[in-house]
Amino acid sequence: MHRILVINGPNLNMLGTRQPEIYGADTLADIEAACREKAVGLNAEIEFCQSNYEGEIVTWIQQARGNFDAIVINPAAYSHTSVAIMDALLAVDLPVIEVHLSNIHRRDEFRHLSYVSKAASGVICGFGKQGYLLALEAAASFFR
Amino acid sequence: MHRILVINGPNLNMLGTRQPEIYGADTLADIEAACREKAVGLNAEIEFCQSNYEGEIVTWIQQARGNFDAIVINPAAYSHTSVAIMDALLAVDLPVIEVHLSNIHRRDEFRHLSYVSKAASGVICGFGKQGYLLALEAAASFFR
Amino acid sequence: MHRILVINGPNLNMLGTRQPEIYGADTLADIEAACREKAVGLNAEIEFCQSNYEGEIVTWIQQARGNFDAIVINPAAYSHTSVAIMDALLAVDLPVIEVHLSNIHRRDEFRHLSYVSKAASGVICGFGKQGYLLALEAAASFFR
Amino acid sequence: MHRILVINGPNLNMLGTRQPEIYGADTLADIEAACREKAVGLNAEIEFCQSNYEGEIVTWIQQARGNFDAIVINPAAYSHTSVAIMDALLAVDLPVIEVHLSNIHRRDEFRHLSYVSKAASGVICGFGKQGYLLALEAAASFFR
Amino acid sequence: MHRILVINGPNLNMLGTRQPEIYGADTLADIEAACREKAVGLNAEIEFCQSNYEGEIVTWIQQARGNFDAIVINPAAYSHTSVAIMDALLAVDLPVIEVHLSNIHRRDEFRHLSYVSKAASGVICGFGKQGYLLALEAAASFFR
Amino acid sequence: MHRILVINGPNLNMLGTRQPEIYGADTLADIEAACREKAVGLNAEIEFCQSNYEGEIVTWIQQARGNFDAIVINPAAYSHTSVAIMDALLAVDLPVIEVHLSNIHRRDEFRHLSYVSKAASGVICGFGKQGYLLALEAAASFFR
Amino acid sequence: MHRILVINGPNLNMLGTRQPEIYGADTLADIEAACREKAVGLNAEIEFCQSNYEGEIVTWIQQARGNFDAIVINPAAYSHTSVAIMDALLAVDLPVIEVHLSNIHRRDEFRHLSYVSKAASGVICGFGKQGYLLALEAAASFFR
Amino acid sequence: MHRILVINGPNLNMLGTRQPEIYGADTLADIEAACREKAVGLNAEIEFCQSNYEGEIVTWIQQARGNFDAIVINPAAYSHTSVAIMDALLAVDLPVIEVHLSNIHRRDEFRHLSYVSKAASGVICGFGKQGYLLALEAAASFFR
Amino acid sequence: MHRILVINGPNLNMLGTRQPEIYGADTLADIEAACREKAVGLNAEIEFCQSNYEGEIVTWIQQARGNFDAIVINPAAYSHTSVAIMDALLAVDLPVIEVHLSNIHRRDEFRHLSYVSKAASGVICGFGKQGYLLALEAAASFFR
Amino acid sequence: MHRILVINGPNLNMLGTRQPEIYGADTLADIEAACREKAVGLNAEIEFCQSNYEGEIVTWIQQARGNFDAIVINPAAYSHTSVAIMDALLAVDLPVIEVHLSNIHRRDEFRHLSYVSKAASGVICGFGKQGYLLALEAAASFFR
Amino acid sequence: MHRILVINGPNLNMLGTRQPEIYGADTLADIEAACREKAVGLNAEIEFCQSNYEGEIVTWIQQARGNFDAIVINPAAYSHTSVAIMDALLAVDLPVIEVHLSNIHRRDEFRHLSYVSKAASGVICGFGKQGYLLALEAAASFFR
Amino acid sequence: MHRILVINGPNLNMLGTRQPEIYGADTLADIEAACREKAVGLNAEIEFCQSNYEGEIVTWIQQARGNFDAIVINPAAYSHTSVAIMDALLAVDLPVIEVHLSNIHRRDEFRHLSYVSKAASGVICGFGKQGYLLALEAAASFFR
Repeated sequence: MHRILVINGPNLNMLGTRQPEIYGADTLADIEAACREKAVGLNAEIEFCQSNYEGEIVTWIQQARGNFDAIVINPAAYSHTSVAIMDALLAVDLPVIEVHLSNIHRRDEFRHLSYVSKAASGVICGFGKQGYLLALEAAASFFR
Repeated sequence: MHRILVINGPNLNMLGTRQPEIYGADTLADIEAACREKAVGLNAEIEFCQSNYEGEIVTWIQQARGNFDAIVINPAAYSHTSVAIMDALLAVDLPVIEVHLSNIHRRDEFRHLSYVSKAASGVICGFGKQGYLLALEAAASFFR
Repeated sequence: MHRILVINGPNLNMLGTRQPEIYGADTLADIEAACREKAVGLNAEIEFCQSNYEGEIVTWIQQARGNFDAIVINPAAYSHTSVAIMDALLAVDLPVIEVHLSNIHRRDEFRHLSYVSKAASGVICGFGKQGYLLALEAAASFFR
Repeated sequence: MHRILVINGPNLNMLGTRQPEIYGADTLADIEAACREKAVGLNAEIEFCQSNYEGEIVTWIQQARGNFDAIVINPAAYSHTSVAIMDALLAVDLPVIEVHLSNIHRRDEFRHLSYVSKAASGVICGFGKQGYLLALEAAASFFR
Repeated sequence: MHRILVINGPNLNMLGTRQPEIYGADTLADIEAACREKAVGLNAEIEFCQSNYEGEIVTWIQQARGNFDAIVINPAAYSHTSVAIMDALLAVDLPVIEVHLSNIHRRDEFRHLSYVSKAASGVICGFGKQGYLLALEAAASFFR
Repeated sequence: MHRILVINGPNLNMLGTRQPEIYGADTLADIEAACREKAVGLNAEIEFCQSNYEGEIVTWIQQARGNFDAIVINPAAYSHTSVAIMDALLAVDLPVIEVHLSNIHRRDEFRHLSYVSKAASGVICGFGKQGYLLALEAAASFFR
Repeated sequence: MHRILVINGPNLNMLGTRQPEIYGADTLADIEAACREKAVGLNAEIEFCQSNYEGEIVTWIQQARGNFDAIVINPAAYSHTSVAIMDALLAVDLPVIEVHLSNIHRRDEFRHLSYVSKAASGVICGFGKQGYLLALEAAASFFR
Repeated sequence: MHRILVINGPNLNMLGTRQPEIYGADTLADIEAACREKAVGLNAEIEFCQSNYEGEIVTWIQQARGNFDAIVINPAAYSHTSVAIMDALLAVDLPVIEVHLSNIHRRDEFRHLSYVSKAASGVICGFGKQGYLLALEAAASFFR
Repeated sequence: MHRILVINGPNLNMLGTRQPEIYGADTLADIEAACREKAVGLNAEIEFCQSNYEGEIVTWIQQARGNFDAIVINPAAYSHTSVAIMDALLAVDLPVIEVHLSNIHRRDEFRHLSYVSKAASGVICGFGKQGYLLALEAAASFFR
Repeated sequence: MHRILVINGPNLNMLGTRQPEIYGADTLADIEAACREKAVGLNAEIEFCQSNYEGEIVTWIQQARGNFDAIVINPAAYSHTSVAIMDALLAVDLPVIEVHLSNIHRRDEFRHLSYVSKAASGVICGFGKQGYLLALEAAASFFR
Repeated sequence: MHRILVINGPNLNMLGTRQPEIYGADTLADIEAACREKAVGLNAEIEFCQSNYEGEIVTWIQQARGNFDAIVINPAAYSHTSVAIMDALLAVDLPVIEVHLSNIHRRDEFRHLSYVSKAASGVICGFGKQGYLLALEAAASFFR
Repeated sequence: MHRILVINGPNLNMLGTRQPEIYGADTLADIEAACREKAVGLNAEIEFCQSNYEGEIVTWIQQARGNFDAIVINPAAYSHTSVAIMDALLAVDLPVIEVHLSNIHRRDEFRHLSYVSKAASGVICGFGKQGYLLALEAAASFFR
């Protein structure tokens, strides 16, 4: 059974109450539940975590090496500012699927650049909770 | 049964022989076949087309209004230069899923901007042929 | 009797249904009708055409040489991306009146630049259908 | 009978002698006369003024509120540097038609940006004296 | 006998009458005749074509694969705006010689960038009709 | 008793009617009244003036030297365009408190730069009428 | 009694010894004491905290929701680099007053941009310790 | 006898007290006296004026036409922001000598650009009061 | 005996396995061992630490004040994004030697700017493990 | 018999050993020999020189006036940095053919700009040694 | 008797024949003669030299230290590209008067920046040969 | 015994007297002496030279090929402007250590870019004379 690490960046623990017109009504728990269900169908196991700390996200990525087969990451605000997360992803040499709830290219100019994209295998954005499920499926496609 | 229009932009008819280190070994026919199979599973019907003409792509998008329930589009080179395609997509008011075979954010600077993304519901890039299948699934999620 | 060629760019065939909050409720047929009526008053004859193809618009401009006395053009999306249309206009050496339905200077940044303006005698924007009538009048002022 | 305020910016009092290869041979008095004649045909009344002072132009715009039905303004050099005039126009909530004698998009780079355009209903440039008459007609179209 | 495809971009069919102070007095037919004569001397065969359509040029380039030994291309206005033509050239893997009648580096700023140059083997500009003959010679040098 | 000069820039005389969704419902007279009341509490005397003329504001600032102990200034549109006002403030060597009704950093890009800020002791923005009262208090803190 | 959360960013725990020519001689304890005294006068209660961790500041902001009536924040260095703090402030939907000890607009270019300002109700900078007291007053004005 | 108009821009009436480390200890009256003395030696007559109003400076320049043989102008802050003054100078077609007390190229970045320089015959900066005398001499050299 | 604090930024704990073609085969433990040996020769004592947390690095720098005589820091990814670390270094007023394993000027554009360099006494980059030893030597030169 | 001066810029004396993957295996002596042979065929005489000194190249260009009928120049690194060479070429008023061994538009960004191109009649790049021969032919075409 | 070194940069030895519409008909010898005559009147002695070599100009500037009382320099093309000349001027600590024959602010964009201006006491441009005489006078004013 | 070439760029012959607040009190002779002493300890031989000529530095670098085992270079002002020196270093394929006396990242913006860094193995800046000794040590580390 393959193992996928699902990392959520800052403020994603606020989903549901946070600007629902942008991020939708699903809570992070809703997303986790949907991901777990999807993982079963993909014959995979997931670990699902969230942090507001850039350093903690860097550490989790490092620890994925040898323990996980792929990383799904929604870096949220750190997409646009964190070279450290990008470098961590480059260091672990795993398939990396970047996911965003909203379509970042239709929002503020500074949200168009994602350092994480430069270290990701692929990127999925704009599909809300559904985007996580697509990301898991994309991750699974690397195992075949 | 929902109908999805799958539009392919310039040079995608060259897939398989065109820079396979970037675009992979699948031909456009391979992708079409995989899309048709996927569509069956999604209980959807697809139309699959390719053009090297910006004007023809604009026209196809316009004609989708009333005839299709969603558009999946890989605008290829026109992503970066065509305001006309963006405007056409804004005009038809359908779910639009933009897909790219390669991760455009790891390539030339001028490939980072996609006008089409400003009119798309969401974007999927970097997963090769698999990206089309995810895009169809994403399109289907708009019908529920 | 003077002859004026009225060229309409991509997506203008969608007027009426296309984002009416920006482009208004008039269809292209409405505009054509108003232009024909206005032309009568100006003792001029018009030819009125629309294309989604940059290449077709270039060709029409070239053919205007010797056949028309002025060009009124709403290049729509191609305003911002087409050096080819600009070069065609420079090549035919006729009065050129550029017209836009919306005030492009109050919209997206990338709509502020019009290559076509660099080849136009003058520019009229922001007056909807009325802008075409003013453009015809401006064209007529070159014949006196 | 509708009332239109026609405001002329700095150096327009020099027309006729000022760089006629750019601005033409008409004097401001010529333009005023043509405007008055045109206004009669439009069943409108105009007030026609000129100032070299940004502050005076701001004040005139403010006073238009309640006293005029539309503003036609050739802000000349202040187009490119005056946020104050733009703010005044935004404050009075009237139809605003910006006019330029020359086609500013074919001149120096710094003349391409007009702050006033961001507050105008529409813009007309490149038609010399004729542009004022078109502007009056455009203003009149707001009264219908 | 080697085969060279000579592609001419938009508005080059207007040569001779189009801004002769920039592009010279030679017509495209003159250039074609000179090219054919030169080809004989190089023991090569040429096909000579012109289009105002970006999509048609893309298609011709694609069809060159397997049918021609080199491409000489004057992309004209599309040099500066067409990623699609650049991508097509990258896809066919043939020697590509880009040619311009005028020295584009002494003209408008936006003419300094050529996407096509990023896919070309080499570039020749500023020598008018003679530039085509040098380009054919350069193409021939790839056959030795 | 300390004396504070309160200067108001262009269009602030329009407060109350001018875009109340941005600037609020208070008139400049309301603000003046609140300032006068506040001044009493601070044991200070104020002079309160408004001008649409950059030159008049420059002159008032110059005259503050020796006659006032601090300047509170809302330069409005001139914040973003007036080096002359900045230079005048640098010349008089008094505490300068810049105030804006709206939070200029959440508005148009060109409103983010204030030349006046480079000559101010401090800046207060986004608090409407209340901002003036805070500014007076800030001014008073320089007298202690 | 209203509750205000006062958050201090990185290196503010060094105040008093840290570059006093820029930041003044007051320690953070001095500022806290002054704030507490001021709060009493405003009939408010404050919580006062400092962190060098972006993630901790994000977390504190999130926890303010429901527990505080306003946030006063001096984000220090994180003003210029933290989208995460901006997003957290946007998520909690409380009055936010941003404060800086120094006038950031007279310092290094990169200190002119504050992401936090895009999420703040208002901004106060350049008044040292006094700025905090004005910020508390501004916060209190939102309770009335 | 030739006549030279010497125009001084905003804040120059503050010379002597205004930032003497940049502008020196001379007052404007000192400079005027030195200019008058110099003019005698050049067999010329000067008029010497100062204004804080951009509009007044524009007007003076316009009135120089036919009344003066050359203009010496220190536009001060308006150098960097006034297209109107530049346009006025272009309109009067006289020798224009621009002078600055300080070397503007060693000061703030935004002081490096002078619109006035684009309309001046020549520029002299960095020599304090002496610069005016050199400017008069330069003006006189146009009369020979 | 002098004391030197050696701080290592994010992902440096991954050395040896992390992109060895860029960062070399040495582990952080190897580097620490070499530094300890070098320190003996310099008659200095080192403390050697690593963190993925920007906030922890800021805190360590603050605590160096009074406890160490110099700081050697490889800020890794935080070089390019952390104003907070720069500010901390400015606050402690110690000799600071910045070191990078790779030559950051031959890598991605965004790695060319280091905020830390603006607070460092000097910078050493491109020499791998050897760079740390040179940095210690440079630190020691400040004690003489 | 016409005379052509062939100037080679810095480091071209290193050809053959210098980065042959970019510049090819030909030495400068090989190129000179090929040029001399070509010149015979063109009934021309060449002088062939190389310098690492910008000043020496400027001097040679100046001396070409009256002594040569055309200049072929490979300015190498000075293409991108030398206004002096550009000015010298503008001063001598001869046909100037710029040649580069590699296609500079496919290399580092800073190699895309050539000041020399602004003074050249035409430019040839990307054809290695063959480019020199084409350049001589181009030069000869100016003599007819 | 004071000594002034007059340095002329690249291509100034071509004056008279070099683009006289820009640089005038005077030769460098004419300018030297006029300078010598002027020097007599100023009771100064000049040395007058010209070089096409940046290195030689740097060396002459260095040698001025102790041997001359002021430097007048027309750096020509090196103005825009030479940090070395700027650094040499900063090193010798003498009055430096920069002079240009043409008004560089009315020419190509890249001629607007002069590194030399950052090291000069003052700048004089646009007055042709007369500019040298003004520069000598300006130099002399530093001796009083 | 290994041989190291130590190259010093323009104005470094002025050390000791040249802006000692930036470059320190050491003369170039002092640095040379310290380098020679250091070389003995490293069992290496050095050649130490200085030039104000870019071309001479290029030539010395070229001649290092086969004669030296490493290059230590302080390119001074040419760091920021010389592509020729960068190209020469790329051509000789030796270890290159770039050294600067001052920390160039704390100085003028234009000193932040060094072309030489793009060709150097590593860079050392900010340590004055000591930086040369570290550079020699770094060079020696390439011999092991």
